Amino acid sequence: MRVGGERHRAIRPTADAAGVEIVDQTLLPFEFALRRLATLEATAEAIRAMRVRGAPLIGVTAAYGLALALRRDPGDAALDAARACLLETRPTAVNLRWAVDQVCATVRDAPPGERAERAWQHAGLLADADVETCRAIGEHGFTLLEKRSAERCGKGPLQVLTHCNAGWLACVDWGTALAPIYRAHDAGLAVHVWVDETRPLNQGAALTAWELGQHGVPHTVVTDNAGGHLMQRGEVDCCLVGTDRTTATGDVCNKIGTYLKALAARDNGVPFYVAAPSSSIDWTLHDGEEIPIEERDGCEVRRVAGRAPGGERAAVAVVPDDSPVRNFAFDVTPARLVSAIVTERGACDASREGLVRLFPEQRRLD
Amino acid sequence: MRVGGERHRAIRPTADAAGVEIVDQTLLPFEFALRRLATLEATAEAIRAMRVRGAPLIGVTAAYGLALALRRDPGDAALDAARACLLETRPTAVNLRWAVDQVCATVRDAPPGERAERAWQHAGLLADADVETCRAIGEHGFTLLEKRSAERCGKGPLQVLTHCNAGWLACVDWGTALAPIYRAHDAGLAVHVWVDETRPLNQGAALTAWELGQHGVPHTVVTDNAGGHLMQRGEVDCCLVGTDRTTATGDVCNKIGTYLKALAARDNGVPFYVAAPSSSIDWTLHDGEEIPIEERDGCEVRRVAGRAPGGERAAVAVVPDDSPVRNFAFDVTPARLVSAIVTERGACDASREGLVRLFPEQRRLD
Repeated sequence: MRVGGERHRAIRPTADAAGVEIVDQTLLPFEFALRRLATLEATAEAIRAMRVRGAPLIGVTAAYGLALALRRDPGDAALDAARACLLETRPTAVNLRWAVDQVCATVRDAPPGERAERAWQHAGLLADADVETCRAIGEHGFTLLEKRSAERCGKGPLQVLTHCNAGWLACVDWGTALAPIYRAHDAGLAVHVWVDETRPLNQGAALTAWELGQHGVPHTVVTDNAGGHLMQRGEVDCCLVGTDRTTATGDVCNKIGTYLKALAARDNGVPFYVAAPSSSIDWTLHDGEEIPIEERDGCEVRRVAGRAPGGERAAVAVVPDDSPVRNFAFDVTPARLVSAIVTERGACDASREGLVRLFPEQRRLD
Repeated sequence: MRVGGERHRAIRPTADAAGVEIVDQTLLPFEFALRRLATLEATAEAIRAMRVRGAPLIGVTAAYGLALALRRDPGDAALDAARACLLETRPTAVNLRWAVDQVCATVRDAPPGERAERAWQHAGLLADADVETCRAIGEHGFTLLEKRSAERCGKGPLQVLTHCNAGWLACVDWGTALAPIYRAHDAGLAVHVWVDETRPLNQGAALTAWELGQHGVPHTVVTDNAGGHLMQRGEVDCCLVGTDRTTATGDVCNKIGTYLKALAARDNGVPFYVAAPSSSIDWTLHDGEEIPIEERDGCEVRRVAGRAPGGERAAVAVVPDDSPVRNFAFDVTPARLVSAIVTERGACDASREGLVRLFPEQRRLD
């Protein structure tokens, strides 16, 4: 998507193919800087330090990291060491393991002299496949937004509320939840986005607002507390969020706080849409309660990071030192609160029937 | 309530009665400092700068401010000027006008030589009346908590979730929503409080957590996004919040985000209690939608204040400079989501019938 008028991706090979160039997301929204990663170590550090984040983007970055490692030493021992190094950067990221193992399987039987190039090509394929998935989600979601726009009585732009960041910064381009919004905006459908701040890490305020602003999409940042009130006042036409993991029955595990917005949407008759690439669907899970919820370091709740008055980055403490904190990263929105799931193959009901209709090859798993 | 083992009030006359002593709430939770106010100007500044906040406390502070003004000049012109000065400190605070006008009415017919003393006595009566109201709410709310404790199946302490700060720092002592919790804790009923951070001003993290910690009440701070997930996991036995304004039909206008927690409570079968002193009930209002919702300065959303690494107070920006923000201060929780309203006269259903049963003198207004 566009940054200052130029097209960017969250990751792309450098012009000389000596490495990859990423957007350093730890500096956003106050500084936009590209960072060149030319070694395995630089790649691992970027994932660990969350310079890149978002499941699809982590996977693609790790795939390139493996290719860079093989350029230096294409032997089996080096391959295994690189794999181990990458896997321990974010131990809970499912896409990371999936992408790394895909590249390993691709190169394992190749002669050492071809391994690095094969891995590099495969990383590029993963990146392109992610862009195509997001583009297709954007297309199908746009159809829903157009329909919603025709239904509603209100004047002015279509009002969409989103939570956290499921934009191009979490993927390679387009994003998942934001893809239909970019598609609508580019097609001339007037859209305005209510952006939830998304404590504790503020991905909404820091990343979603920045992304939308750079691409020229009208938006307004509100606290996580405000969405219910906006829906009561009729100022939200639909909600559109991403998902970290979706069960075969349509329960949605997404950033903590998503469930509260889904409740408010139902209470006010507002459609609640979830953008879910098929890679997020766990066909082995039948109930969202089975999903283990990551609990992260309490320091994310204790402190808020931002730009200090002098312009430098800083974090301020907001909780008494003696007060305990808990930091749950996700919650589960039951399928009954989800109006539609938007995948790369189209939109469907949040149910086993709806999902299997789009992905009939999964029927055998029923 | 207790601070470091000593009993404190949010405001009290100094030992020499030359002025009042307040807890400077702008320094909490990282610094506890009492501040002496001996003039009208100091009182007005403390209200304006939010060194004191919370409707009951603002009213009592302003009453003392008027008394201090009359000590210097008990004439009619000085009285009118002091009244005007106090009223413009927080133009939307209903209790402020009510308290100031009460004191004015009390002194207007008195000889100038007696005015200051009368005003001082009346301010003290207002403070004592507020303490008694909060103590009674604590007693009636404690009965509900005891009943809830007996009903629930869980082991361990009774788990109560609260939002914002409706504690002694918002009143003179005890608080409204926190009064039943202090009462329960002091009576030996094991209680643990989930404290919502309460963006944008973080009154939960900064004030409620500090209050509870100082009094020794077990508690844990969570982001505003977390409450729904906690209720889904069965980790909340009841919610207990305050109210800024309550309609005659039991709709509750409270800090933004309260409605979202009420929705989650209903979805999970968790009782949702509201502590409402009768001064918060607006008998002329029949529908929460009639309540005008204050929209505050967007800088509260753009920046988060806390303690910088060097120990000094600082605020960091968290929203891109070009992104618009909106800052709604309150939302309305419809009566249908409220399990009980706890007043100084007892608890009742959130309905006209329930409220009029406790306040039969209001029947004529039906």
